Amino acid sequence: MITKNTIKLVQSLKQQKFRKEHQLFVVEGRKMVEELLRSSFDMVYLFATERYCNENGIPDDRMETASEVQMAQMSGQDTPPGILAVVRIPKRTRPISHEGMTLALDGIANPGNMGTIIRTAEWFGVKEIVCSEDCVEIWNPKVIQATMGSIFRMNVVSAPLDAYLMEERNMGKAIYGALLEGENIFKKAQWEDGIIVIGSESHGIRSNILPFITHPITIPRVGESVTESLNASMATGIILAAFAMHS
Amino acid sequence: MITKNTIKLVQSLKQQKFRKEHQLFVVEGRKMVEELLRSSFDMVYLFATERYCNENGIPDDRMETASEVQMAQMSGQDTPPGILAVVRIPKRTRPISHEGMTLALDGIANPGNMGTIIRTAEWFGVKEIVCSEDCVEIWNPKVIQATMGSIFRMNVVSAPLDAYLMEERNMGKAIYGALLEGENIFKKAQWEDGIIVIGSESHGIRSNILPFITHPITIPRVGESVTESLNASMATGIILAAFAMHS
Repeated sequence: MITKNTIKLVQSLKQQKFRKEHQLFVVEGRKMVEELLRSSFDMVYLFATERYCNENGIPDDRMETASEVQMAQMSGQDTPPGILAVVRIPKRTRPISHEGMTLALDGIANPGNMGTIIRTAEWFGVKEIVCSEDCVEIWNPKVIQATMGSIFRMNVVSAPLDAYLMEERNMGKAIYGALLEGENIFKKAQWEDGIIVIGSESHGIRSNILPFITHPITIPRVGESVTESLNASMATGIILAAFAMHS
Repeated sequence: MITKNTIKLVQSLKQQKFRKEHQLFVVEGRKMVEELLRSSFDMVYLFATERYCNENGIPDDRMETASEVQMAQMSGQDTPPGILAVVRIPKRTRPISHEGMTLALDGIANPGNMGTIIRTAEWFGVKEIVCSEDCVEIWNPKVIQATMGSIFRMNVVSAPLDAYLMEERNMGKAIYGALLEGENIFKKAQWEDGIIVIGSESHGIRSNILPFITHPITIPRVGESVTESLNASMATGIILAAFAMHS
């Protein structure tokens, strides 16, 4: 029996302030719940409709049945997929040094970009993503959806970016930043492990972060293109691909 | 003076069937309108609010002033940027053969992906994008927004993809398709001009298209990643980058 209070709690998690207050977030859909069940995340509730179970089987023995109406109330989607879980937000750790590339995100605001960056970073073997404190909250349902499950496997930490980068630079790490005037990543013969700084959609890499960039890099345009820029997640993927190609 | 009928017309263009009927679409925001005015597209109306003009100047002498209420009625955005243009949909041409890479999109359904593909393709010098007839309509406002203006400079045509690919293959063109078992694009030393087929978000490259692929390629995962796939627009960008790197 799902109580009214539980439904109210799940509904409240559509808002960031209640996610923060309760330290809970919501995932929906078969694929995302399967990824959750395979992860080490702490699942607090799992709800599915009878119709979902008839079509897909019982996903887990902790499942409680929700009516179509209850599911519609709890779901954040126009067409509820019929399965929804409430998950505890894991304690965020402090950034630590890793082999390979780490991403540092300077004010990424668009949830789709954030999710795609997490998904693509996992593909290319990134172990940790360090977000400036004004990045979009990663437990936002649109971020979670766009990660396609990578959210459960990627370590995403939040930190003052300038202090973090100063520490890493003092340890001798290479700090890459995509700038208009930088080394052509397609001609770059040598890469070393380090940190790739990705600027925000509207402002690029901000002035307090620029001094920490030790290796300015550029994704060159081809032909007569007059586009001003690439999407922030696209630029991230292309830089990670260029690094992967030389590793 | 903006008539009620004009407002009704602009409102109707939020729906695909009316865009098709009137052969018109809408662009909003300063950047997009600036790109429009620089293009060869046929602008039918240009509206801006007084506030917009006070802050940004008069964008063009064809502009008509709209009240805040009228703008809110016409705008498709929660926060109307205060400038909106109605544009004639250009006549689509048949696909033609180009140097460099052409993209062939097999059922891309997500407007954000479609827009990002158009934007990224322009960056990498692609001259034409051929869409299967069931791709998302490119005059959808979300597509237009995600192109960041590339929509005005990229030739996007619609065609039965199998007939198009057969013709190109018969002319000896290389037809690349990202598949699970293909040549590692990071190790691939030689690329020739041709067509890159991009599968849809949910089904990949469909079975009626697979026989036309002459060059199966793969974007390799790095490390212990267990992600199943990359986002469709991300995969497009990474393949175009790999091609650009060898050109």
